[in-house]
Amino acid sequence: MRLSRYYVPTLKEDPADAEVVSHKLLMRAGMVRKLTSGIYNYLPLGLRSINKVANIVREEMDRAGAMEVLLPTVQPADLWQETGRWEYYGKELLRFKDRHDRDYCLGPTHEEVITDLVRHEIKSYKQLPVNLYQVQTKFRDEIRPRFGLMRGREFIMKDAYSFDKDEAGAEASYWNMFEAYKAAFLRIGLNFKPVQADSGAIGGDFSHEFMVLAETGEDTIASCKACEFGANLEKAKVAPPTETGGLEAPCPPMEEVSTPGTHTVEEVCGFLGISADKLVKTLLFVVDGNPVAALVRGDRELNDVKLRNLVGGNEIEMADEETVKKLTGAPVGFAGPAGLAEDVPVYADHELLSATDWVAGANKGDTHVQHLSLGRDCKVEAFADLRVIEPTDPCPECGGEIEFKKGIEVGHVFKLGLKYSEKMEATFLDENGKSQYMIMGCYGIGVSRIVASAIEQNHDENGCCFPPSIAPFEVCLISLGGKDQDVADKAEELYATLEGLGVEVAYDDRKERPGVKFAEADLIGYPMQLVLGGKGLKNGIIEAKNRKTGEKTELPLEGFAEAFAQWRKDIWNGWGLDA
Amino acid sequence: MRLSRYYVPTLKEDPADAEVVSHKLLMRAGMVRKLTSGIYNYLPLGLRSINKVANIVREEMDRAGAMEVLLPTVQPADLWQETGRWEYYGKELLRFKDRHDRDYCLGPTHEEVITDLVRHEIKSYKQLPVNLYQVQTKFRDEIRPRFGLMRGREFIMKDAYSFDKDEAGAEASYWNMFEAYKAAFLRIGLNFKPVQADSGAIGGDFSHEFMVLAETGEDTIASCKACEFGANLEKAKVAPPTETGGLEAPCPPMEEVSTPGTHTVEEVCGFLGISADKLVKTLLFVVDGNPVAALVRGDRELNDVKLRNLVGGNEIEMADEETVKKLTGAPVGFAGPAGLAEDVPVYADHELLSATDWVAGANKGDTHVQHLSLGRDCKVEAFADLRVIEPTDPCPECGGEIEFKKGIEVGHVFKLGLKYSEKMEATFLDENGKSQYMIMGCYGIGVSRIVASAIEQNHDENGCCFPPSIAPFEVCLISLGGKDQDVADKAEELYATLEGLGVEVAYDDRKERPGVKFAEADLIGYPMQLVLGGKGLKNGIIEAKNRKTGEKTELPLEGFAEAFAQWRKDIWNGWGLDA
Repeated sequence: MRLSRYYVPTLKEDPADAEVVSHKLLMRAGMVRKLTSGIYNYLPLGLRSINKVANIVREEMDRAGAMEVLLPTVQPADLWQETGRWEYYGKELLRFKDRHDRDYCLGPTHEEVITDLVRHEIKSYKQLPVNLYQVQTKFRDEIRPRFGLMRGREFIMKDAYSFDKDEAGAEASYWNMFEAYKAAFLRIGLNFKPVQADSGAIGGDFSHEFMVLAETGEDTIASCKACEFGANLEKAKVAPPTETGGLEAPCPPMEEVSTPGTHTVEEVCGFLGISADKLVKTLLFVVDGNPVAALVRGDRELNDVKLRNLVGGNEIEMADEETVKKLTGAPVGFAGPAGLAEDVPVYADHELLSATDWVAGANKGDTHVQHLSLGRDCKVEAFADLRVIEPTDPCPECGGEIEFKKGIEVGHVFKLGLKYSEKMEATFLDENGKSQYMIMGCYGIGVSRIVASAIEQNHDENGCCFPPSIAPFEVCLISLGGKDQDVADKAEELYATLEGLGVEVAYDDRKERPGVKFAEADLIGYPMQLVLGGKGLKNGIIEAKNRKTGEKTELPLEGFAEAFAQWRKDIWNGWGLDA
Repeated sequence: MRLSRYYVPTLKEDPADAEVVSHKLLMRAGMVRKLTSGIYNYLPLGLRSINKVANIVREEMDRAGAMEVLLPTVQPADLWQETGRWEYYGKELLRFKDRHDRDYCLGPTHEEVITDLVRHEIKSYKQLPVNLYQVQTKFRDEIRPRFGLMRGREFIMKDAYSFDKDEAGAEASYWNMFEAYKAAFLRIGLNFKPVQADSGAIGGDFSHEFMVLAETGEDTIASCKACEFGANLEKAKVAPPTETGGLEAPCPPMEEVSTPGTHTVEEVCGFLGISADKLVKTLLFVVDGNPVAALVRGDRELNDVKLRNLVGGNEIEMADEETVKKLTGAPVGFAGPAGLAEDVPVYADHELLSATDWVAGANKGDTHVQHLSLGRDCKVEAFADLRVIEPTDPCPECGGEIEFKKGIEVGHVFKLGLKYSEKMEATFLDENGKSQYMIMGCYGIGVSRIVASAIEQNHDENGCCFPPSIAPFEVCLISLGGKDQDVADKAEELYATLEGLGVEVAYDDRKERPGVKFAEADLIGYPMQLVLGGKGLKNGIIEAKNRKTGEKTELPLEGFAEAFAQWRKDIWNGWGLDA
């Protein structure tokens, strides 16, 4: 490609609305343009990177035995009504009516459509398993789209759906996809980690997220330094306490203590002169309309996803002021497990088993209790893992040291189980002629988001540093001849040589100053730069720069093809990739 | 690909709602499935054909210097309001509101979005010309979707947009695309013809349609047997008459004649005992709200697109009964050019210049006039080409013989001119620093429709006969071994050989009866079939069938690769294609 004839509208300044580096650089490198909030035009360079990601993903999906289909963007409401998601999905599901006043939505995901397809086609266990995938434009009407391609409304996703006849098959399909994802992300050149995740609103049995590790990531993951363990914070298990005699341990009689004007843990502890780990924090929630109390130690953070899963609910929210008053008979800030309204089940983090003699709210204004024994003074429905893991906690799997990392979710695998097949009657006849529900899995990769994540992970002050596997072009050949016809001729010759080698070259043949050419090549982040000037030509060499490391070397013009091939191989290898 | 592990849900029966052969065969061959009216799931085989079409189109677009982008599906209303199409486009434009109550539509075409993109980026004549294209899912809310992929609501289209600094450049861009389209359709293996077309609602200066010739086509085209001329009927010029003295020719005085109860041309002519070519037919229209009368000979058909273009209007419709009564003072069926309401301009087909002494309506119930002279008895605003061409007309370009053919529109090139750039202020600074509007062109190819058209053009009673360039797989290798392990082993070996040659093979390794395998291979329409059975193996040969011609031959198992390569080349050549 000749840059003189190519459409790469680079920008000198960061766009005003760009908050994260990938958004800034994608705009400045002329790879995307915003059409409207959360909706982007993919320009030639941006689309090339997206297609490279998509094609690597396709190859790994095909290798894993999945088959590519393409399902519609516009989906009829009746399928979503069958699964109940027409009501449940919320406003991210963009709904509309066609000219005949029938209800439709723009597909944010395709469980309903694929299950509808498969239930009409697959009748026998002999046709299972099947795994169908697509690379498709999705729409989710995010309330606050931001960060460019990281959280858009319209975006490109690879989604796959597996259908199996039994649990063993479904698990095999799940781990098959898990491995395909690992292979794809490795080939893309990402530094990533698969972590345990909550299966959330899509529902189902278990799931993993694939996190690109980057300081700018929105997600936090707990990762073990010793073993493979990694989990999204909302999912990360906390190991049970080693000491568990707290319920039976001796404790002075509970008594009220006046704590005027103390509403926070800090205020209470400060007033009473105790540390926060001596206090039990009581949090009130409403899960699917029913009140629930949760206890954690004063210095810990409750994990509401764990609570929701323990209770078995769909939607969880903090109780509002009015509800708190009704349940505790006191203003907000004085809730406690003893003397709470009788119909409120109390769940306690299992760490609270390890001690006794707690301070807690007294369900009475400006008052707490001390010498609370959870075994003696109140009824606890269950002790369970309810809190957010902390870096000081041991790894729940090996006891090793935990560290927190920032990540960007680029893939997600779910074992769905029967969630959709039951609701949509997706059945087959088993070996005994008996009707059974298909067991499903679903698997997503954020294709356009990966390009942004790769930039978040690989950039410097001058611009993007693309992995060679997904760079819009592998090589930028910069001709610095000016009016020197010999340099121009040699550059043309090298361009032809590189194209002949099957290398994707952005050939900067423009009449621009060298500084402009260098800056744009750095900004766009072609992994390899080749610079030919008059002096080099005289000395029989071309300057070669590795964009990622900044390392410069000289390649001979005589025998260029071989020298280039070796240099290219080294650069790919430097990324942990095969050229 | 092994058919035993592939998802090809063939059907034995034609689906009840399928009217045309491509729809029936796409469904029966397991290539598509209907999700809902006009919206289809593309299954693995169907998607493969679609992608092959798309990739050939991409290659020819790239070769022509166009650059691929991807624009959003969801488009904000404000851009459509700028061009006026938010009002004008009608109900095919599916409109909706997002969660913040802002207006959007699903893109049926992308003139607004691309012009918005380019006007923000391109400032100087130095950046022109530019041609950007995409392969994208479009949505048009057709009132009555039908014929499967031929007229769906959601479909895949390649659309390109060119921007030029002057007329010469714009014409060059137009003809560049014209040639690229010809190259693409040739490589796809279609029998097609580019024809002159009306530029219709998209507007603009001139345009061509690319028609796939097929008896089942919805469009009729006039085609010259002697020269290259071809035109959509609504566009096809009719040569002016050679005799033009009719206005001045002597004619007896006009007089009324009673024609009770005669409403049609046939009835009037029968009653008066004259042939239809002696009668002037007067048709009343309303163009953008204004009445207009058009005259054609009694045996001719008026072309309302020509009339609309002559008048220079946007929307044309037949006058309703009430309007006819108001303008003629008579019931429907008795309109004539003499004595019509004064404010109705009368346009006459130029053929009427060739004679005089006409019969026409008298603008009076049950009455006609005879001896009408158009030069003497009424005012004609203009004589022009206003009728539909007929097979007996000479070619308007060379005078040769015309024939009518049926066609399916698969491509359309438009020279848009300034239509969008003026309304959207897409300007650039020319060589003199003066602001100018960009001159645009737009160019569409119906990617998914091409797969259907290829089937309309290439099928027989047993199924599809795909051109090898766009067949889902080139070869079907059918193993007939049953329990014969030698045959199974040899088939595996041949499968590996073919894959090694880079040939796309559908390997039918299923435990099905030979009849089922043959029928499905014919139904899906792989261009080449290779059949290995016990007898063939014993004799050292494999049976090879050309699906299109039905021709069978035998290839030796010894030296198979070479023999196959030659046979494959012959089959591609038989399609007029290079393997």
